[in-house]
Amino acid sequence: MIVSDRSSVEGPVLVVGTGLIGTSIALALRTLNVDVWLSDPSPTALALASDMGAGIPLAQVDRDTDPQLVIVATPPDVLGTVVAQALSDYPEALVVDVASVKLAVFKDVEENVLASNSGSRSAEEALSRFVGSHPMSGRERSGASHAVGDLFHGRPWVIVPTKWSSDAAVLTARNLVSDLGAVPTILGAQEHDQAVALVSHIPQLFSSLLSARLVDAQEEALALAGQGLRDMTRIAGSDPGLWTAIVAGNAGPVAALLAQVQADLDNLLSKLAGPGAGEDLPVPPGAAGAISALVTAGNLGVARIPGKHGGSPRRWGSLEVLVPDEPGELGRLFGDLGAADINIEDLSLEHSARQPVGLARIQVDPSKLDLAEQELEKRGWRIAGKDIR
Amino acid sequence: MIVSDRSSVEGPVLVVGTGLIGTSIALALRTLNVDVWLSDPSPTALALASDMGAGIPLAQVDRDTDPQLVIVATPPDVLGTVVAQALSDYPEALVVDVASVKLAVFKDVEENVLASNSGSRSAEEALSRFVGSHPMSGRERSGASHAVGDLFHGRPWVIVPTKWSSDAAVLTARNLVSDLGAVPTILGAQEHDQAVALVSHIPQLFSSLLSARLVDAQEEALALAGQGLRDMTRIAGSDPGLWTAIVAGNAGPVAALLAQVQADLDNLLSKLAGPGAGEDLPVPPGAAGAISALVTAGNLGVARIPGKHGGSPRRWGSLEVLVPDEPGELGRLFGDLGAADINIEDLSLEHSARQPVGLARIQVDPSKLDLAEQELEKRGWRIAGKDIR
Repeated sequence: MIVSDRSSVEGPVLVVGTGLIGTSIALALRTLNVDVWLSDPSPTALALASDMGAGIPLAQVDRDTDPQLVIVATPPDVLGTVVAQALSDYPEALVVDVASVKLAVFKDVEENVLASNSGSRSAEEALSRFVGSHPMSGRERSGASHAVGDLFHGRPWVIVPTKWSSDAAVLTARNLVSDLGAVPTILGAQEHDQAVALVSHIPQLFSSLLSARLVDAQEEALALAGQGLRDMTRIAGSDPGLWTAIVAGNAGPVAALLAQVQADLDNLLSKLAGPGAGEDLPVPPGAAGAISALVTAGNLGVARIPGKHGGSPRRWGSLEVLVPDEPGELGRLFGDLGAADINIEDLSLEHSARQPVGLARIQVDPSKLDLAEQELEKRGWRIAGKDIR
Repeated sequence: MIVSDRSSVEGPVLVVGTGLIGTSIALALRTLNVDVWLSDPSPTALALASDMGAGIPLAQVDRDTDPQLVIVATPPDVLGTVVAQALSDYPEALVVDVASVKLAVFKDVEENVLASNSGSRSAEEALSRFVGSHPMSGRERSGASHAVGDLFHGRPWVIVPTKWSSDAAVLTARNLVSDLGAVPTILGAQEHDQAVALVSHIPQLFSSLLSARLVDAQEEALALAGQGLRDMTRIAGSDPGLWTAIVAGNAGPVAALLAQVQADLDNLLSKLAGPGAGEDLPVPPGAAGAISALVTAGNLGVARIPGKHGGSPRRWGSLEVLVPDEPGELGRLFGDLGAADINIEDLSLEHSARQPVGLARIQVDPSKLDLAEQELEKRGWRIAGKDIR
């Protein structure tokens, strides 16, 4: 129903590691009627994933065949061992990992495969059946209980071949990614690791660094928290064990970027707290220039982030509509939009405490914006704002 | 309709500075049928605010009376002069400012009032008619064109009396805040400045520091951007001029917090890039401990942020519902919830590119969560997730 009712990936597929990503992949494959087997060192995690309909625990499978594909979704620090074991246990299977770092994982895989392949089949043959990948679909929550089959829809999923990966392995990884509704992108391991340091690991550390300042904060200060602080700290709720493995596994690129941040921060702080600060001057000398340069650079940087769905930024028309805080009112709003044949591309609702009204921000196709406004006003809705951006 | 149709603030009210905050206050007061006069050094900004229905430009007012209340909503660096001028021009009026910093502004106001009050009325009398305030309702957008009358609904609005402020001035500020639907909180100037450094100024600088790293980033890296990076960089789009004035005006508290961040960052970086890094070790020595301690502290910090509506964190039941991407489907969803008498407290929609389905996250009263799930499933909706947090 969601992507297509047929998968180009052939099963059985063995998913090793039934956390958020592994279970979400398994659920998506089940939707496509692919046979999925599950394995996890935690019996609880395994039972949960199985109960959710993600597949059959490997130990319960009445096997007369090996898996065609093994997806390794373990934490990165144990991944090398698990991949090497899978390549050895299933000599016909392709193996794909989904870890957030690649160079360190590849090195680990290679060492483990070399160590375990003194036998008849060569290490090169085994390594040719392995390809790295990384779905860019994290959440601040982890574990199978938050898994959803459409976690990957429309999201980038990087495929990272090793120097050994066969064309067949890369093709299978591409098919898997497409089957799951994600957008495949091929990158080298080093490119990948530098990219995710920037778009994922540094943001995580920034969120943690900021949130760490709240540990000893006054209650009265926290009571003033607004959407800015909330947005900036949301991912600070992420799992420390997982992120320790991710960041430690990508220490080089992360450290290189953090050193650039450190230089910017040192410069700013030297002006804010430097000579003249706290004295009888309205603003410390040089501070205004340093702050303005930083905020301006931030303006330029944020403008480079492509639109939500990848590709060049897409423009949306945005309407802000006041909605009485009563059951059925949102239904009436969206019913009115539906009746006018206007599709809602995105929306958010701000709810005001102690007030009988909320503010719904609705995004529609810019060409439908005026129509949407007219139709809603005709039906008695109060429009609080309108723009295209 | 929104809060009450009567204001306890008596007009005419003069709003000096028709940017986002000044114009939003003026629009809200007009909703309450208070006479509002407007003033701004920019004729364009003034005309825009007036065209939006925010009030009458001061120069066009046929005056036989003075304003009862002057609200000064200029940038902080010119505020002292403007407040002193208003106290002098309108000897019966109370004057309230809405700047984001307080100690520096108060010092500036005091100096300006002392300089201009060698006449008959004492400086103390003039200063008794002034009280500081700060509505916590910023947006990453600025200017009158983004003003909305309900910008302050349910948001904290700090009232900061000076040592000179009369009880009448403080009471008027409270009435103003309540009339505009905001939640008044009284803080001292130093407490206020330290609080906003933490919950507003440091988050802004973090967002800018992070976004500044994107200026020279590879396109392929930016194409991998997910919601985490987007959330962390949203406020980096803010106005550099405004933020330079705000941060420079609160340099002391901002620098004190940044120095703590600097210490955390230096510590992390010393472990990530310290001895052993880049060598033949899976993880640099000490790095795992440093990362884990930081992410754990972030977990603790973010958990202290109170719920969206202030006060202690409120728990919501959350349902994730798959919604076909067709006109009217959201209306049907909310109509079904309304029919079951279930109120939606908050919601967000994630829209998947190229996919015929979106994911709606709906927050409801936790006691209604099971009912909501049953009612929706009965009506054929697919529930992708459910939890209380």
